Amino acid sequence: MRKILLLNGPNLNLLGKREPGVYGNETLKHLEENITSLGDAHQIEVSCFQSNHEGELLDRLHLANEDGTKGIIFNPGAFTHYSYAIRDAIAGIQVPVIEVHISNVHSREEFRHTSVIAPVAHGQIVGLGFKGYELAFYALMDLAKGRG
Amino acid sequence: MRKILLLNGPNLNLLGKREPGVYGNETLKHLEENITSLGDAHQIEVSCFQSNHEGELLDRLHLANEDGTKGIIFNPGAFTHYSYAIRDAIAGIQVPVIEVHISNVHSREEFRHTSVIAPVAHGQIVGLGFKGYELAFYALMDLAKGRG
Amino acid sequence: MRKILLLNGPNLNLLGKREPGVYGNETLKHLEENITSLGDAHQIEVSCFQSNHEGELLDRLHLANEDGTKGIIFNPGAFTHYSYAIRDAIAGIQVPVIEVHISNVHSREEFRHTSVIAPVAHGQIVGLGFKGYELAFYALMDLAKGRG
Amino acid sequence: MRKILLLNGPNLNLLGKREPGVYGNETLKHLEENITSLGDAHQIEVSCFQSNHEGELLDRLHLANEDGTKGIIFNPGAFTHYSYAIRDAIAGIQVPVIEVHISNVHSREEFRHTSVIAPVAHGQIVGLGFKGYELAFYALMDLAKGRG
Amino acid sequence: MRKILLLNGPNLNLLGKREPGVYGNETLKHLEENITSLGDAHQIEVSCFQSNHEGELLDRLHLANEDGTKGIIFNPGAFTHYSYAIRDAIAGIQVPVIEVHISNVHSREEFRHTSVIAPVAHGQIVGLGFKGYELAFYALMDLAKGRG
Amino acid sequence: MRKILLLNGPNLNLLGKREPGVYGNETLKHLEENITSLGDAHQIEVSCFQSNHEGELLDRLHLANEDGTKGIIFNPGAFTHYSYAIRDAIAGIQVPVIEVHISNVHSREEFRHTSVIAPVAHGQIVGLGFKGYELAFYALMDLAKGRG
Amino acid sequence: MRKILLLNGPNLNLLGKREPGVYGNETLKHLEENITSLGDAHQIEVSCFQSNHEGELLDRLHLANEDGTKGIIFNPGAFTHYSYAIRDAIAGIQVPVIEVHISNVHSREEFRHTSVIAPVAHGQIVGLGFKGYELAFYALMDLAKGRG
Amino acid sequence: MRKILLLNGPNLNLLGKREPGVYGNETLKHLEENITSLGDAHQIEVSCFQSNHEGELLDRLHLANEDGTKGIIFNPGAFTHYSYAIRDAIAGIQVPVIEVHISNVHSREEFRHTSVIAPVAHGQIVGLGFKGYELAFYALMDLAKGRG
Amino acid sequence: MRKILLLNGPNLNLLGKREPGVYGNETLKHLEENITSLGDAHQIEVSCFQSNHEGELLDRLHLANEDGTKGIIFNPGAFTHYSYAIRDAIAGIQVPVIEVHISNVHSREEFRHTSVIAPVAHGQIVGLGFKGYELAFYALMDLAKGRG
Amino acid sequence: MRKILLLNGPNLNLLGKREPGVYGNETLKHLEENITSLGDAHQIEVSCFQSNHEGELLDRLHLANEDGTKGIIFNPGAFTHYSYAIRDAIAGIQVPVIEVHISNVHSREEFRHTSVIAPVAHGQIVGLGFKGYELAFYALMDLAKGRG
Amino acid sequence: MRKILLLNGPNLNLLGKREPGVYGNETLKHLEENITSLGDAHQIEVSCFQSNHEGELLDRLHLANEDGTKGIIFNPGAFTHYSYAIRDAIAGIQVPVIEVHISNVHSREEFRHTSVIAPVAHGQIVGLGFKGYELAFYALMDLAKGRG
Amino acid sequence: MRKILLLNGPNLNLLGKREPGVYGNETLKHLEENITSLGDAHQIEVSCFQSNHEGELLDRLHLANEDGTKGIIFNPGAFTHYSYAIRDAIAGIQVPVIEVHISNVHSREEFRHTSVIAPVAHGQIVGLGFKGYELAFYALMDLAKGRG
Repeated sequence: MRKILLLNGPNLNLLGKREPGVYGNETLKHLEENITSLGDAHQIEVSCFQSNHEGELLDRLHLANEDGTKGIIFNPGAFTHYSYAIRDAIAGIQVPVIEVHISNVHSREEFRHTSVIAPVAHGQIVGLGFKGYELAFYALMDLAKGRG
Repeated sequence: MRKILLLNGPNLNLLGKREPGVYGNETLKHLEENITSLGDAHQIEVSCFQSNHEGELLDRLHLANEDGTKGIIFNPGAFTHYSYAIRDAIAGIQVPVIEVHISNVHSREEFRHTSVIAPVAHGQIVGLGFKGYELAFYALMDLAKGRG
Repeated sequence: MRKILLLNGPNLNLLGKREPGVYGNETLKHLEENITSLGDAHQIEVSCFQSNHEGELLDRLHLANEDGTKGIIFNPGAFTHYSYAIRDAIAGIQVPVIEVHISNVHSREEFRHTSVIAPVAHGQIVGLGFKGYELAFYALMDLAKGRG
Repeated sequence: MRKILLLNGPNLNLLGKREPGVYGNETLKHLEENITSLGDAHQIEVSCFQSNHEGELLDRLHLANEDGTKGIIFNPGAFTHYSYAIRDAIAGIQVPVIEVHISNVHSREEFRHTSVIAPVAHGQIVGLGFKGYELAFYALMDLAKGRG
Repeated sequence: MRKILLLNGPNLNLLGKREPGVYGNETLKHLEENITSLGDAHQIEVSCFQSNHEGELLDRLHLANEDGTKGIIFNPGAFTHYSYAIRDAIAGIQVPVIEVHISNVHSREEFRHTSVIAPVAHGQIVGLGFKGYELAFYALMDLAKGRG
Repeated sequence: MRKILLLNGPNLNLLGKREPGVYGNETLKHLEENITSLGDAHQIEVSCFQSNHEGELLDRLHLANEDGTKGIIFNPGAFTHYSYAIRDAIAGIQVPVIEVHISNVHSREEFRHTSVIAPVAHGQIVGLGFKGYELAFYALMDLAKGRG
Repeated sequence: MRKILLLNGPNLNLLGKREPGVYGNETLKHLEENITSLGDAHQIEVSCFQSNHEGELLDRLHLANEDGTKGIIFNPGAFTHYSYAIRDAIAGIQVPVIEVHISNVHSREEFRHTSVIAPVAHGQIVGLGFKGYELAFYALMDLAKGRG
Repeated sequence: MRKILLLNGPNLNLLGKREPGVYGNETLKHLEENITSLGDAHQIEVSCFQSNHEGELLDRLHLANEDGTKGIIFNPGAFTHYSYAIRDAIAGIQVPVIEVHISNVHSREEFRHTSVIAPVAHGQIVGLGFKGYELAFYALMDLAKGRG
Repeated sequence: MRKILLLNGPNLNLLGKREPGVYGNETLKHLEENITSLGDAHQIEVSCFQSNHEGELLDRLHLANEDGTKGIIFNPGAFTHYSYAIRDAIAGIQVPVIEVHISNVHSREEFRHTSVIAPVAHGQIVGLGFKGYELAFYALMDLAKGRG
Repeated sequence: MRKILLLNGPNLNLLGKREPGVYGNETLKHLEENITSLGDAHQIEVSCFQSNHEGELLDRLHLANEDGTKGIIFNPGAFTHYSYAIRDAIAGIQVPVIEVHISNVHSREEFRHTSVIAPVAHGQIVGLGFKGYELAFYALMDLAKGRG
Repeated sequence: MRKILLLNGPNLNLLGKREPGVYGNETLKHLEENITSLGDAHQIEVSCFQSNHEGELLDRLHLANEDGTKGIIFNPGAFTHYSYAIRDAIAGIQVPVIEVHISNVHSREEFRHTSVIAPVAHGQIVGLGFKGYELAFYALMDLAKGRG
Repeated sequence: MRKILLLNGPNLNLLGKREPGVYGNETLKHLEENITSLGDAHQIEVSCFQSNHEGELLDRLHLANEDGTKGIIFNPGAFTHYSYAIRDAIAGIQVPVIEVHISNVHSREEFRHTSVIAPVAHGQIVGLGFKGYELAFYALMDLAKGRG
């Protein structure tokens, strides 16, 4: 595996500012640097992309299918709960996606308990903070080996 | 009738690549050429537009209300199941819309059985593959005659 | 393809008399002549059958499986919403069925939004008036070619 | 006990032809001969009746109440899931009914999990193929002894 | 008003025999004679029809629209709870229908609490035994005057 | 039977003024005179009571159990849909109650389709206008005879 | 603690007369004397109040907040299941309330299984007959000590 | 417009004492003086009425229809969630009603999210504290001008 | 307070053209001028923004958190009913938001009765037409004062 | 009555350590000593049993039916919400059971609002802390007298 | 086939004592002897096991997969309705299971209508008393032949 | 952190044998050795425990609270979906738990989509096979560091 995409959905650009009791104090920039460093350490190129626009996330997912991306770490933010378009995009590409949530969505509001994306994701990591992204990175590496 | 809009929603740019068992092997380009030819044969101008962005679809629907479009063939993709914004746009314009789905959505996942758009569409064609778009074209022609 | 069945369910014998605001002013006889003419023009024999009796519709569907019928245009009327027996009959035969509804059932009462038949139909055409039957005819022709 | 009714509902005349993966390759004729032979072996007259018409099944159930029938083996087919009329008929007669389903309805579509008839049946045998009818025969014999 | 139809649905031919604790000891014949006498006393012709076949009830409702019937007293039996076909038939004719139930359906099983027919009936009389049919007769007479 | 109570619930004092398209143009006074005259004609004392106060209706129902009332004609107005207290009061007294609704509640808003009172009422008359009260009067007379 | 309120809601004035199989043969008077004696034995003043009027119960609850009442034993009768006004009153005062039901509401009709009041009550005693009120008295005494 | 009614429902007499974290520290008296002053400043007579009795609120609404009231500012308290009687009263009068809630009911318990009254109110103001009543006053003035 | 944002969601650019029976005849331009004038009169800068793109609305909400905006008047259009992303954005910023709807959403289709945004809004004004925006302006001014 | 069983279900061995804000600081040992002393004071033998194993609780309930136990005080812990096996055991024995919950389950998570056991228990005491067990003891004594 | 397991779940050790109106007067011992004799008559070893412990039933099911058991007759008692662990065990072994219920669960409480086990069972026999176990024995023999 | 518990619930002893298409070919022994080796490499003691008995899992969770365990990796198997007892045990102890599922439960049967345990778990890892346990191990290490 040579290329991984770190994809973040709506409001995640606010990390560090937004409800720090829920999401912690570190920023998106920090997260992206963190995973990029991890990639460097393993000779893996990490692309980072965040958008508040559902359509841009769809476009980026489609692109990943063309540009040699081998795995996607994806926190869809609130789109998790209603974007069947993102679900279809994931089902429509061949690249495996690991869904990540920073907070434990199951101990929050009812609507956060349902992910319309999970059924087409390869796996899901929930409630482990920024560490969850890191673990997803390792899972994708492992997956690559298993296929490889 | 002089002008028809062929509108396709999210992920339909993947046609031919995406789950070919469900959506077939032909591409969006092929579909658009097909309907455009049909238009040529009947002296009707066919505009083609596809977007993964809900907002762009809304803008395009609004535009159709201004530019003399007489009918819209619309496959809203996954927006079918949750985009009340698209529903409102269709209710807010005077151009008749025929909703088309390539696959038989009723024999797939539960969430695909509900269309929030159907109640404001003029009609709906489901499960007839690319042929469905063609039939919608004929229905719009028929509708135009009926109106006058 | 040489033989098509035009099948109409309960209360469709009332066409032209029944709620004309919803179903139009033309009669069942007119509809049957219309599709039969279309058949003549394409060297296809069209059998027409209407019944208010669920059992007779089941018997007719079974017969279609034996008598060389190559496609069925079927408006199941109100049976659409509860006749699992008809659903089973369609699933139990090999002839493809296209479900047709004259009015846009999705903009009417809640109970009309669910079709227990759609999951086993080949496709569905909704809200396009008598034109819908005509389009179903073309779809079946197209289907035959695709298989032929 | 001298007289048993073997009653089969809609689409069961298709046995052997209909979805053999689900219902097997043997025909209704074979089933009826099988149970009749079993009756012969035990000096019990077996009447066989199949219909796709709900009303004919109701009439036959009513008749059973008058003609000395001592037990009914009944596969109501798809009527299982919605015919409250059949439920009322069974509740309205004194003859015990054992409901039989060839396939395991509980491992199929959601709507097949509910029987509106079961609450008024004497018992239910599900998923044991043609053998289920045979077991129902023995259960009725046992019941007769218990009452006798 | 010169002509009234007394229509009874499935299992009502069992009156007097069926669950007498619920439906009483009098027979359908008695009921029909009773309402016919009432008609005689008011110079009104009363037609009586009972069937266990949904299709025959539909046909009879359609006929009533043609033969000068001015009002229908209708106990749809168990069809009350699921026959959207009967609902459509009533909506499709011009003759007013009064729905009658002998027992208080609201104090019985859950499924009996819903009538798919009531929304298109003129009115409903529940739980008043055979007297309910008589009251429906008077209501139809009253209705005729109000329109006459 | 010597004594009947005509009981009307909330907003029925507005009869004649309130939504005349739904409830007609006649007033409560007219209704009460009408039923009282009917009582006079049959040597039956009719007490009339209307209140917008649930508690007063409860008190009046309790009183009816003590003052020799033999039957109650009751239109509970909107309390029909939520007053379990009235339901308990009716269940707690021995006097039979016939529930009356002027309009056909089943063809109006969803919440009007459920009566929490019907399960404990003797019977129910719906959608027959003021005539419904009159029929309830006759039903109570009939009931008295049946018991007498 | 010097003062306790014994509060009973709608239809509890019928105790001894109303469905004795469910509520027993003793009257409200007897209950009130019983709890008052208990109060006398422990130097506690017991006020008794029963009303069929939701508003009067609200007023009495408000008063209890002003007149030094230290605890309330409350059987809200049928208001248990829908009076959010009473719920708000209890949440709006500082006096602890123990909800009492004579019968085991959980083995009766579905609607009796839900108490909209329980979430704001201090505790709940169900199904222990008149003894339940007595136990509530002891619980309030215990509570007072715990706070005192 | 000369006359406005300020109507408050159950438990709003506790304002200032009841859950001050939710409803603030000011009393009902203060609120009524506030709106009355506002009326004085605009030559509008403001009647104030609060009751814990549903029936008294109904009576007051009916009266408003007779006494020349031109608009009603109404906080129905907990009746918001279940009093279909109040809904019917509002639908039955011609005076426009603006529904006001002090707290943001949508961020509190589930049952507070539904208003059975809103569908028949002219408008609704939620979560703006005492200011909400003031804004309702201005909205009614504006409405009067629009009609005047 | 020096700066307010007037934010309008999808299809509100069609104001004046779209379903005038529901939304009135005035245009978005008129609304924006109206609120801007109001701002001028109170020395408050009003920024106006409308978009059919969910992502642009998210971006604009985020910006408001940075550019000194002190309050937001927001009509989210159809996003009201499903955009949890917008909900999260509002929860993630410190600027108070007042949700405004022109029509009374509670008297329209079922899906319009639920706002996923309301629980995180400061307040909500519904059904008061363009006046609702004006009142929201005053509420924000009041809020600013209250905060000092 | 000579013998009572004090039965505690899963996690109640953690009392004193587990969520003391909810369950208090006292231990199970203290509770058992408390009720045993109460028994001593009334010449009643109290057996105490706690288990985290559903099967052991079932065995113990069965044993109680054989060993002369006259009443059971039972806190089923979380089994309250799903153990139909325990429900069946209670229904299957003759010894009366009083269900006790330390905390007010109705003001906690949704799933705690339903008890599958309550319908077959004799009564239920909720939210009164350890005092609830004591009251159950008295209720069982009272019950014994009533039967004795 | 040489070896069959007769497995009974919770509370079935109470047979003969527990609710004899529902489950009859015969004991578990009698049942086990009965099926063992049947086995003897057909040269089949029958192992009998009953437990109130879900875990022991799981262990026994696992063992059956190892010890040459060729079929399992299983009455899971109340575990039928919630033990997904038992469902998984059955799905995880290769031995076919026939689910048996003594009483007609479909005419009892709502919760008994759902079996979480049925979808993975081979078949189901309901409501035929002890005879049901016997029939299951024959079905397993038949199954063995069919595979053999 | 010195001590970690690897806890596996019902049917996980079948790993390698049970539905290998879903759960893979490796055994529980292999999994336990794998995680133990990982522990060795990081100087962490790993205790392994598997049980099919809910009660034993509860006991083991309680023990972990006493024996210095610093984190728990827990696959509750089917108990995930209904064991509120396990949920309470986790809520009742101080040791953080990471819930692991081998397969992607969200793409399997409906009942597997709900975890009653997730709301009280620290985090959740789903669908990543045996690798998921490994990642949970790293997450617990990370957690320990974060806590200091």
